[in-house]
Amino acid sequence: MRLLGLDPGLRNTGWGVIDVVDNRLRHVADGVIRSDASLSLAERLTQLFDGVNGVIAQWEPEEAAVEETFVNKNPESTLKLGQARGVVLLAPAKAGLVVGEYAAALVKQSVVGTGRAAKQQVGMMVRTLLPGCLAATPDAADALAVAICHAHHRSTQKRLARALS
Amino acid sequence: MRLLGLDPGLRNTGWGVIDVVDNRLRHVADGVIRSDASLSLAERLTQLFDGVNGVIAQWEPEEAAVEETFVNKNPESTLKLGQARGVVLLAPAKAGLVVGEYAAALVKQSVVGTGRAAKQQVGMMVRTLLPGCLAATPDAADALAVAICHAHHRSTQKRLARALS
Repeated sequence: MRLLGLDPGLRNTGWGVIDVVDNRLRHVADGVIRSDASLSLAERLTQLFDGVNGVIAQWEPEEAAVEETFVNKNPESTLKLGQARGVVLLAPAKAGLVVGEYAAALVKQSVVGTGRAAKQQVGMMVRTLLPGCLAATPDAADALAVAICHAHHRSTQKRLARALS
Repeated sequence: MRLLGLDPGLRNTGWGVIDVVDNRLRHVADGVIRSDASLSLAERLTQLFDGVNGVIAQWEPEEAAVEETFVNKNPESTLKLGQARGVVLLAPAKAGLVVGEYAAALVKQSVVGTGRAAKQQVGMMVRTLLPGCLAATPDAADALAVAICHAHHRSTQKRLARALS
């Protein structure tokens, strides 16, 4: 099962692709999609949408996961982030992928073991859990963390479904 | 010149199409795109995106305009609106349309003559400026108001360009 994690932002959207084989995780690829701040908002959103579609076309994930956005105290920032997030959620949905959403605390819990881990700890644990991964930027590391969270959550859901059936 | 106005919202996105011929405005069509609140966010955003694309395919506008979103005091609402707005801006941009953005006060100014007009006044003036239009819902009336604002703003920009050339 190949999973795509996404960490949305208008300026930088992190992405990470992992494979889950027999409950083992393998790093496939990660990176950042950037939008050009000199362009109009509509054009920047198009760059993000095309970028995520490009990642989906190249790596062919079967499911996607997006972190629930931290609601900023600054409403202008929240609006910007919301606009980017809408487009980043739309791309995998339009491509027919199931899109999971996870609270930031659950992502940290899945990767570090505590919901209040620092950003650096997340990056360090992502590199430990996915040997060979570079996670070149914090956004890419966060995206891989969301993918790892989805991998854990998926198997929990499956065990739950078996227990209830 | 055919213009599409859009008033984004996650639950209801208003849309209105007008023609501008020799500085005269003519109502073409208006309506509301709804998303199903029982679906996931990714699915709801897909409904909005597909809905706006459907309007563009049916009415073939040449340019689009979107109201700059009112930043709510409630960050959760702002985030929801942002996500809807991102997708509503993306649809015309992906279709190759120029997308204008206008502050709410400028839209009211263009339609009613004052930036602090009430919502009902906007609806009433839209119906006066566009004889024959129903503007069935307030969201559709707001969308038509944005299209009217864009029609005014476009011609001002053209006069300005002539004066400066």
